[in-house]
Amino acid sequence: MDIFIEPIGRLINEFTKLPGVGKKTAQRYAYKIISMSRQEAAQFAAAITDAKSKVHYCKVCGNFTEGEVCDICLKRDKSQICVVKEPKDVIALEKLHEYKGVYHVLHGVINPMEGVGPNDIRIKELLSRVQQGEVSEVIMATNPDVEGEATAMYIAKLLKPLGINVTRLAHGIPIGSELEYTDEVTLSRALLERKSL
Amino acid sequence: MDIFIEPIGRLINEFTKLPGVGKKTAQRYAYKIISMSRQEAAQFAAAITDAKSKVHYCKVCGNFTEGEVCDICLKRDKSQICVVKEPKDVIALEKLHEYKGVYHVLHGVINPMEGVGPNDIRIKELLSRVQQGEVSEVIMATNPDVEGEATAMYIAKLLKPLGINVTRLAHGIPIGSELEYTDEVTLSRALLERKSL
Repeated sequence: MDIFIEPIGRLINEFTKLPGVGKKTAQRYAYKIISMSRQEAAQFAAAITDAKSKVHYCKVCGNFTEGEVCDICLKRDKSQICVVKEPKDVIALEKLHEYKGVYHVLHGVINPMEGVGPNDIRIKELLSRVQQGEVSEVIMATNPDVEGEATAMYIAKLLKPLGINVTRLAHGIPIGSELEYTDEVTLSRALLERKSL
Repeated sequence: MDIFIEPIGRLINEFTKLPGVGKKTAQRYAYKIISMSRQEAAQFAAAITDAKSKVHYCKVCGNFTEGEVCDICLKRDKSQICVVKEPKDVIALEKLHEYKGVYHVLHGVINPMEGVGPNDIRIKELLSRVQQGEVSEVIMATNPDVEGEATAMYIAKLLKPLGINVTRLAHGIPIGSELEYTDEVTLSRALLERKSL
């Protein structure tokens, strides 16, 4: 990349670290930065360092927060805990504006192939939250893939002896899609879990 | 965006300022930043502020440089000047490793519809370079669109009386493409500018 002068080459290189960004796109981003005013660029850079320095994990649920404990843990109904893999799953659920309970972010799922066992994700923390006694339902909202299912089953087995109602998000045919184009695994699952009308 | 805590929301907002980046992509970029180490994020932010503070325009050719005059102007053959619209066009030509002359970046093209006249782009600077006498050829490498063509014609008219050989990049069918799929304007241009074999 010696056709770029050093500061531009370095900026392009940084941009390629973002997911899905290749050299060409990184180059466009770098030109955009250079065409910004000095103040705009400083603001951009500050947003990056601020996001990194101000954002922590909530010590209760593991979600992003600026303080010690996140707003959701402080303000919401603690009898329901929704268990997710990552902070971005919290965002996906919060966008619905329907769920009124709190969350528990595992920061991963059990994945023996990659050496991630139950002790490597925040399962212990979930157990101790449940043992404090306020919880009546734990909703497993890990992804519907092999690891997500296995993690949900594992946690359910741990929690059921404590008398907790453990539920799982429903699987089935997505609303608005067509039977013809639904993949076989989803369709057979939808058939298996059919409901009486 | 109040489902995001402030530093994350702000970072997402900054990323949407990059060309072609929507909310979803900006969100992915922001999560990537948060998942970086503090040092990596600081490095990213520094690359942005450095690119902005260290990169200037060469006072001779208008291309990006860290010093007063760019390396190309300092080291290369000054008898040929290649005239381009933007610094990124210099990169496109430099990638060929074929051209040995210098450049002149106009920082725009004549565009009456958007109120850009000949005095708003770096034409005066080009003229004074040419008048210094070292130049034998000026290659017009503006884009092959209406504004690019008009700008090339305008500059050619200014330079020809000075006894300068003004040339234009060839237009025609791109190498490797098919006649059938070549657009009509390009094809008729290729026919008009046919060469004897």
